[in-house]
Amino acid sequence: MGALGDRMGMVLIEAGPQRVVITMPVAGNTQPYGLLHGGANAVLVEQAGSIGAAMHAGPDHLVVGLDITCTHHRGVRDGIVTAVAEPLSLGRTVTSYEVRITDDEGRLVCTGRLTCLIRPVTPT
Amino acid sequence: MGALGDRMGMVLIEAGPQRVVITMPVAGNTQPYGLLHGGANAVLVEQAGSIGAAMHAGPDHLVVGLDITCTHHRGVRDGIVTAVAEPLSLGRTVTSYEVRITDDEGRLVCTGRLTCLIRPVTPT
Amino acid sequence: MGALGDRMGMVLIEAGPQRVVITMPVAGNTQPYGLLHGGANAVLVEQAGSIGAAMHAGPDHLVVGLDITCTHHRGVRDGIVTAVAEPLSLGRTVTSYEVRITDDEGRLVCTGRLTCLIRPVTPT
Amino acid sequence: MGALGDRMGMVLIEAGPQRVVITMPVAGNTQPYGLLHGGANAVLVEQAGSIGAAMHAGPDHLVVGLDITCTHHRGVRDGIVTAVAEPLSLGRTVTSYEVRITDDEGRLVCTGRLTCLIRPVTPT
Repeated sequence: MGALGDRMGMVLIEAGPQRVVITMPVAGNTQPYGLLHGGANAVLVEQAGSIGAAMHAGPDHLVVGLDITCTHHRGVRDGIVTAVAEPLSLGRTVTSYEVRITDDEGRLVCTGRLTCLIRPVTPT
Repeated sequence: MGALGDRMGMVLIEAGPQRVVITMPVAGNTQPYGLLHGGANAVLVEQAGSIGAAMHAGPDHLVVGLDITCTHHRGVRDGIVTAVAEPLSLGRTVTSYEVRITDDEGRLVCTGRLTCLIRPVTPT
Repeated sequence: MGALGDRMGMVLIEAGPQRVVITMPVAGNTQPYGLLHGGANAVLVEQAGSIGAAMHAGPDHLVVGLDITCTHHRGVRDGIVTAVAEPLSLGRTVTSYEVRITDDEGRLVCTGRLTCLIRPVTPT
Repeated sequence: MGALGDRMGMVLIEAGPQRVVITMPVAGNTQPYGLLHGGANAVLVEQAGSIGAAMHAGPDHLVVGLDITCTHHRGVRDGIVTAVAEPLSLGRTVTSYEVRITDDEGRLVCTGRLTCLIRPVTPT
């Protein structure tokens, strides 16, 4: 999951270009009021959307995040949140994923969208 | 800085409603390719914009992040990044901050915008 | 539909807090290359999400658009596009709608999200 | 300005990759409450950012809008609004512009950001 994903306790549950599922604990990922940090949701959106994009692009290509947007719907104080990413469009140079994050009771916490650019791996 | 900000090594350099400055190391906050995680930029945007909003709102009010958007301009492999948040609008119920993140050489890494809602603290 | 919606040929097909549907012709709403203007999609997102928010809020309240985001998935050269808005969250002070715009063949053209603030109507 | 820009009364005041300025009247571009339509701001952001991107890309390339985000700061009832677009990053395949829209008194009405993809013109 990379250094930040590991540090935040992310667990990859499912991975493929059509669907990526990641879980993350609230504990340790909170802001000063003790709620899940809005930015933690954004990391989840980037992580889930990038994994989907990378699996769509294949091993000969890199994916680069361009734009991320998140709308926060509700605070979460504890438990685990689950992100589900599904593609909006999968092209040869650009991917767009929608990511929905829910809490332990299935309530929508955050909705995000990630646009990635696909680039060929250039040998060094 | 809250649990997530501490875990990510954020340091608050300057704080006020007109300007918030935070630094963060790249190491430990990377994605699988070893570059600064795009979501780490988003955490910085949320953190910096929320601190500004909270200082504008004052101690009798809470601020809640509503919408965050980030555009990633360049990858960063090491060193420290610096986020500077400045207000676009400061109202009685809504704030909007723009946050620019630069690398050690002053190059623009990410531009973000955070909208927060201001709510009265309701006694429990 | 207001002056801009009328000028752009928008037709309200369905309206309620749980679902708003609006159609719009491509002709007359194009950019210099002759494709549907990306901003025309954004007007649709604002229009559809605001109507849903206003119907949720009721006649004693005004709704004010705060944040809009759109990702463009494909160009459209002619025909009619259809926007469908559905709520992500409906609160007492904030609403969030997702809007999907498709072309005549049902292909996804644009995905947008609109956050609105609900304010009481204050007598003048 | 293309069909939509012409219909909305946009006037191009200045154009170059480092700065694009466009004006637009409020009249005719309003939503049902009689205020400037939030989507009209988004059309301005797309128009100004795309013109800058096209001038950066040059005549052998097309630019395609990918992501647009706008935060609305204040309502406008009449007069003219002015959009100023300036680049955040100008690459070989991606551009990012920030656009600030002000009213007749210079007050900030809307802040937007547009990401465009640059594509080679392919002969038909």
